[in-house]
Amino acid sequence: MTLSRADLEELDRKDALRQFHARFVLPDGVIYLDGNSLGALPTATPTRIASLIEKEWGRDLIRSWNTHGWIDMQARVGGKIGRLIGAGEGETIVSDSTSINVFKALSAALALNANRRSILSERNNFPTDLYMAEGLLGLLERGHCLRLVEPDEIAGAIDGDTAVVLLTQVSYRTGRAYDMGAITTAAHAKGALTVWDLCHSAGAIPVDFSGANADFAVGCGYKFLNGGPGAPAFITVAHRHQARARPALSGWFGHANPFGFEESYAAADGIARFAVGTPPVLSLAALEVGVDLMLEASINALHAKSLKQFEIFRALMAQELGVHGFSLSSVDGPGGRGSQISYAHPNGWPIVQALIAKGVIGDFRAPDIMRFGFTPLYLGFAELWDAVTILREIMDTRLWDGPEYHRRNKVT
Amino acid sequence: MTLSRADLEELDRKDALRQFHARFVLPDGVIYLDGNSLGALPTATPTRIASLIEKEWGRDLIRSWNTHGWIDMQARVGGKIGRLIGAGEGETIVSDSTSINVFKALSAALALNANRRSILSERNNFPTDLYMAEGLLGLLERGHCLRLVEPDEIAGAIDGDTAVVLLTQVSYRTGRAYDMGAITTAAHAKGALTVWDLCHSAGAIPVDFSGANADFAVGCGYKFLNGGPGAPAFITVAHRHQARARPALSGWFGHANPFGFEESYAAADGIARFAVGTPPVLSLAALEVGVDLMLEASINALHAKSLKQFEIFRALMAQELGVHGFSLSSVDGPGGRGSQISYAHPNGWPIVQALIAKGVIGDFRAPDIMRFGFTPLYLGFAELWDAVTILREIMDTRLWDGPEYHRRNKVT
Repeated sequence: MTLSRADLEELDRKDALRQFHARFVLPDGVIYLDGNSLGALPTATPTRIASLIEKEWGRDLIRSWNTHGWIDMQARVGGKIGRLIGAGEGETIVSDSTSINVFKALSAALALNANRRSILSERNNFPTDLYMAEGLLGLLERGHCLRLVEPDEIAGAIDGDTAVVLLTQVSYRTGRAYDMGAITTAAHAKGALTVWDLCHSAGAIPVDFSGANADFAVGCGYKFLNGGPGAPAFITVAHRHQARARPALSGWFGHANPFGFEESYAAADGIARFAVGTPPVLSLAALEVGVDLMLEASINALHAKSLKQFEIFRALMAQELGVHGFSLSSVDGPGGRGSQISYAHPNGWPIVQALIAKGVIGDFRAPDIMRFGFTPLYLGFAELWDAVTILREIMDTRLWDGPEYHRRNKVT
Repeated sequence: MTLSRADLEELDRKDALRQFHARFVLPDGVIYLDGNSLGALPTATPTRIASLIEKEWGRDLIRSWNTHGWIDMQARVGGKIGRLIGAGEGETIVSDSTSINVFKALSAALALNANRRSILSERNNFPTDLYMAEGLLGLLERGHCLRLVEPDEIAGAIDGDTAVVLLTQVSYRTGRAYDMGAITTAAHAKGALTVWDLCHSAGAIPVDFSGANADFAVGCGYKFLNGGPGAPAFITVAHRHQARARPALSGWFGHANPFGFEESYAAADGIARFAVGTPPVLSLAALEVGVDLMLEASINALHAKSLKQFEIFRALMAQELGVHGFSLSSVDGPGGRGSQISYAHPNGWPIVQALIAKGVIGDFRAPDIMRFGFTPLYLGFAELWDAVTILREIMDTRLWDGPEYHRRNKVT
C-alpha cells in the first residue's frame, strides 16, 4: 500500500502525544531528526533559567544553596531520571558527564569484583565509554584488560575472569538495543557485574533497571531528556551495591559531611557518594525542566509512537528512494532497538549536509551512517513525509554532490 | 586615627574601579562579603544566557556546535582564564569541576614522576583536593602515599620521594597565600612537580603561572570569576609537560579526532586532551561573561583595592569590636594572602547567621572561622563600615544568641 502525506496528517490528528508539540520551541522550516543528539528546547526552560539567574543567583546569592535547594538538585533530578529508567528511589544522582560516570561505575565495579581482571564490551560501543575504560586500566596497572567483541558474541564471551560487562544499551550508530535483562542475567550467572550506558535509552524506550536486576547505569541529559547542550549526566547504582561501592572520584560533594571540611574522605551514605565537585547549577536546572516534561508523558505511549515512526520512515524510504542505494543499518522489526533509524550510504556525509541545508536535520556517524532520530514528544508524522520528500529531491537532482556539502565540520 | 563612614565614602568617590559596580546585579539591603564563595551576577549574564538558550539551542539546535562555536568554548574560555593567571596561550582549558581537575593533574603528575611515591600537601588544604588524592591513591595501590604537613613545613618536607606538591595557593580558611614561585623552585630543586589549586587566587590576586615555572594548576569559575553557581572549572598544564602528560580521565572530548569515533583513545595535542565529556554549555557561557568582565579590569588595581579593603576592615574591627573576642586568622601585613579576611570566634556560627539575617553576607568555615571576602570589582568601602557597624550591634545586643541563629544549614 502506497503512503501519502494525507495518511500521515491523519496519524497526526489522532496522535494523543500531539499536545506536547506546543511545549517545545521548534524553528520554522526545520524538520528535526536529531533530538537523539541534542533534544529540542522546552518552552518552559527560558523562564526557569531566567528566574534561576535573576532571583536565585542574582538576588539571593550564596543563600540559594539552602533556600532554593541547590544542594538537593543532584539528588532530586536524579530521582526523577531514576523513575524514567525503572530504578528504585535513591539509586540515581545527576553528576558530571557520562564519560566521568563511566569511570566511576567501572572503578566501583572492578573493586567489587576484585579477583577478576576483564572488562567486556562491544567493539562498536560509543567510543568515550571505551576510552574511559582505557584510562582507568592505565591507572590500575594490575593486569586488567578490555575485551572487545561483536554484539552477538557478548553473552557467550562472559567468563570467569569477566569483572564487568560494559555496554551501551542502544547503539548510537544502528539503534540496535540489547536486552538488558537477558545480558544482566547472563553476566550474573558467571559472576560478572554490568554497567549500562543508557544515553540512547533514557526517555527513548522503556527501561527497567530494577527489573533487569542491573548493577550500574549511566546516561546523558541532553538527548531524549531535553536538558540542553552538555546537560549533566546521571549515574545509577543498585541499592545492594551502594554500601560497598566506592567512588574512585571521591570529592567533597560525595562526602558524608561536606561542610564539616574534614581532613579525610568519608563516603556519604547511598547514591550521594557518587557526586564529586560542585555541580553546574544552571545546566542542572535546565535538565530538570526537560525531565519534568518527559515525566508528564507515558514512556509506553512514546515508544509505541516511535515504533510507528520507524515503520513509516522505513516504508517511505523504500517507496520513494528504493533506487538510491540506502542500506538499512537498523534492526528491522518491532523490538530490539532505540528511537532512531540509520542507513548506510557511501555518500552519507554530503547527503546529510545537503539535508541540513534544506532544513532536514539528521546527523552523520563515521564511517558511512546517516542517522535520523525519532522524538515522539515533538516530532509529527507528516514531517517524516516531508523529510523523505526532500531527501528524494536531493538524490534525484544530485544536489548532495555540490562542493559545499563535502566540507568537513568540527562536529558531525 | 579613628575612621568614619565619611572617610570611606571619600575612598569610594576616588575609586577607579567604582564603575564596575554598575556591571553587577547587587540586591538592595545586602552587603555581599561572600563573592569568594559565589561571585555576584554580572548584568550582562541574563541576556547572554537568554540568547544562548533561545537562538543557539532553540533555533539553531545541534548546528550550534559548529555555527556558534560551542565546540571551541572550552578552549576559548580557558584561554581567557589563562591570561588572568599568567599562563601561556594554549595552556588552559575549561572542563569539569575543580575536584575532577585535581584528579587529572595529580594522575598526570604521578605518571610523569613515576619513580616517586609521595604526594605532599597541607593538612588544611581544601578538603576535596585531599579527598581526590585519596581516591586516586586507592586506585593506584602501588605504595603511593599522601603526606600532610603544616604550611610552614612544606618547603622543608619536599624530598627525593616527593612526586608532586599539591597546594591551594590561597587558604580558604585564613586567606594565607603561598609564594608560588618559591615553593615551585623548592619542589623542582628536589625533582618534584607542583599542582596549584587557584580557586581563591584566580581573579583575586596577581598570579604568574609561567613566571613561577609551575607545572599544573586547577581552579573554579564560580568565585572571583563570577561564572555562576557551579560554573565549570579550569585546568592548566605547562607546555613543557603537554606532550607527555596523559589524562587518566580520557574521554572523547580529549581525543585527537572526537568525531572520527575511533575504537582506541588517542590524546589530542596540547591542552585539549584534558577535556573529557560533553561540557555544560549553559554554565560555560555564563562563565565566559564573568571572565570577560574580569579581563576588563586590571588585576593589579583589583589587588591594590583588596589590600586596602583588608586594612580598613581590620582597622574597623579593632576600632569598633575590640572587646568582643574576635581573633584574626588571616596573615597581617600587605602580602602573602588572598582577597579575604578571617576571624576566629567561639560563637562564629551564630554570629555569621545573625549577620546574614541583617543582610551582611559572609560565611562560616568549620570549626570557628568567620570569613569575609573582598571582591573589589563590586564591593565598596562604605559597605565595610556598614558591615562592621551591624556586627557591632549584633555583638552589643547579643542578638546572635537567639535560637534561630544556632540552627545548622546543609550548606554553610
